Amino acid sequence: MKYYIGIDVGGTLSKIAVVNERGRIVAKRIVKTPISNKNALINKIVQASKEILSEKNLKRKHIKAVGVGMPGAINSEKGIVYYLPNIPRWKNVPLKKILESKLKIKTCIDNDVSLMTLGEFCYGAGKGAKNIVCITLGTGVGGGIILDGKLYRGATLVGGEIGHVPISVGGPKCNCGGWGCVESYIGNRYLMNRLRRELKKNRSIIKTLIKKKRMKLSLELVDRAAEMGDKYAVWFWKDFGIKLGTMLTGVVNLLNPERIIIGGGVAGAGKFIFGPVKQVIRKRAMPIQAKSVRIVKAKLGEDAGVIGAAVFARLNGK
Amino acid sequence: MKYYIGIDVGGTLSKIAVVNERGRIVAKRIVKTPISNKNALINKIVQASKEILSEKNLKRKHIKAVGVGMPGAINSEKGIVYYLPNIPRWKNVPLKKILESKLKIKTCIDNDVSLMTLGEFCYGAGKGAKNIVCITLGTGVGGGIILDGKLYRGATLVGGEIGHVPISVGGPKCNCGGWGCVESYIGNRYLMNRLRRELKKNRSIIKTLIKKKRMKLSLELVDRAAEMGDKYAVWFWKDFGIKLGTMLTGVVNLLNPERIIIGGGVAGAGKFIFGPVKQVIRKRAMPIQAKSVRIVKAKLGEDAGVIGAAVFARLNGK
Repeated sequence: MKYYIGIDVGGTLSKIAVVNERGRIVAKRIVKTPISNKNALINKIVQASKEILSEKNLKRKHIKAVGVGMPGAINSEKGIVYYLPNIPRWKNVPLKKILESKLKIKTCIDNDVSLMTLGEFCYGAGKGAKNIVCITLGTGVGGGIILDGKLYRGATLVGGEIGHVPISVGGPKCNCGGWGCVESYIGNRYLMNRLRRELKKNRSIIKTLIKKKRMKLSLELVDRAAEMGDKYAVWFWKDFGIKLGTMLTGVVNLLNPERIIIGGGVAGAGKFIFGPVKQVIRKRAMPIQAKSVRIVKAKLGEDAGVIGAAVFARLNGK
Repeated sequence: MKYYIGIDVGGTLSKIAVVNERGRIVAKRIVKTPISNKNALINKIVQASKEILSEKNLKRKHIKAVGVGMPGAINSEKGIVYYLPNIPRWKNVPLKKILESKLKIKTCIDNDVSLMTLGEFCYGAGKGAKNIVCITLGTGVGGGIILDGKLYRGATLVGGEIGHVPISVGGPKCNCGGWGCVESYIGNRYLMNRLRRELKKNRSIIKTLIKKKRMKLSLELVDRAAEMGDKYAVWFWKDFGIKLGTMLTGVVNLLNPERIIIGGGVAGAGKFIFGPVKQVIRKRAMPIQAKSVRIVKAKLGEDAGVIGAAVFARLNGK
């Protein structure tokens, strides 16, 4: 059996796993992502990789390659991190070279969502499909694209930014510098601001839960209120689904994918979101495109990133 | 020298050309497209093909293959026309088979805009690029995509419908059955309706030209008024550019193409449109994506379709 190390660096937590050639995780470790400085983060993942190997009695020679997913704009060919929007001080860092010199194992890096997409494509909700679009809902709205069975990257390797497809000519300012992007309507930060603003004006159960049960305002709370039948909460997620569905209508007409995989934190509110998303695509997208696409939930959950990173290592780490 | 026949069927006119293996047109014929019934159209292009051959003293054996671009949803693998939105009575027609039985030459069919894209890619504004998006402005807003040097078609071969990417969550009803698509804002029909409505309320030179010079209201007239410095006309094209640019921002962030080629009738108003389009993409798209893309005008004009059809015949007609 061959083994790979898959690393998934997030804005808050990072995951390091040893994955076998069949995509099974044999050991995993979750660490807090040091964001204060570059070296702290690099040393942390190097140390965690070494620890996980010794814990499993694996030697360096047992690991064929290391794959790393980073949350930002990456040049996967040169192994350079262009920048990370949520982790400061990462600008044009030759991460591949740095990690190879420290780990002494062949390493390759790419965008985290691209690698999650690769994970879902090989072992998750994308299995068996050739054209898929993957979308992760969270603080940011990320995307990955598999076309004709291969990860699509674009001319300068930064394609797939599905969260930054505009759904209005005007619209709110987005974190990316643009405006009206779908992320500026359904990214967590924007949702929370909206919740705070709108809750002042209505009688939602959410307010009662916060006051009487001393719960903190969160998207999970909105999900819970929706489960309890709260009209505002149900409408909140429906509106979310309509906005996501509007953007996906464009993707469906443009790319004619066979599967769209939705994952990430907010996908917990799945049953309230999936219905409206499917309905919007069925009504708005062109008939043949709408009929040929299936909207499905991601299957690998939190592990998609490390599994995809290991797949990437297997494909590129020769 | 090897020769191919390239056919470009349009809603009004159809073009039939003999094209050599270097993409040069050696003979061309333009005919009115019979839209009253299917056989009339098929017979017309068969007859025109035969005439053009005898005119040039070419025999059937000199023609390696025939490529046909049709304005609608096509299954290029099976050679079937699913439907043509602007030509009635075309539903699931096995056009490839029909033409081969009549012409006795290997024939392949595809969507017209896909083939124009192929033409521009090989011999026009897309030469030398690997990832391009082509957009044609007219009654409809069509699109074609070349990714990693190959025509991209999608899971059921109907991808590339760039005109039907929504730019608003609500928005006007579109010809495709959806709403808020960019075509519903910048397609010719919608533009003309808008012109009629808006001209009632303002003092544009356009009105003077219509009254005093007895000119007919048309988009060319708006172009002329813009040339004369008419504020409304300049604003009209600027607004057009902003809407097109908003949709293209999404395409740029999603596909990270190196070139976007704009062609079609309305592109005559180029100097008033290109500025706003470029400005919107520069301001709204993500920095690396925005920097790596060039927005250019189509080069082959009216001939892109027949040249692309001939290229398609060369690639697929073996």
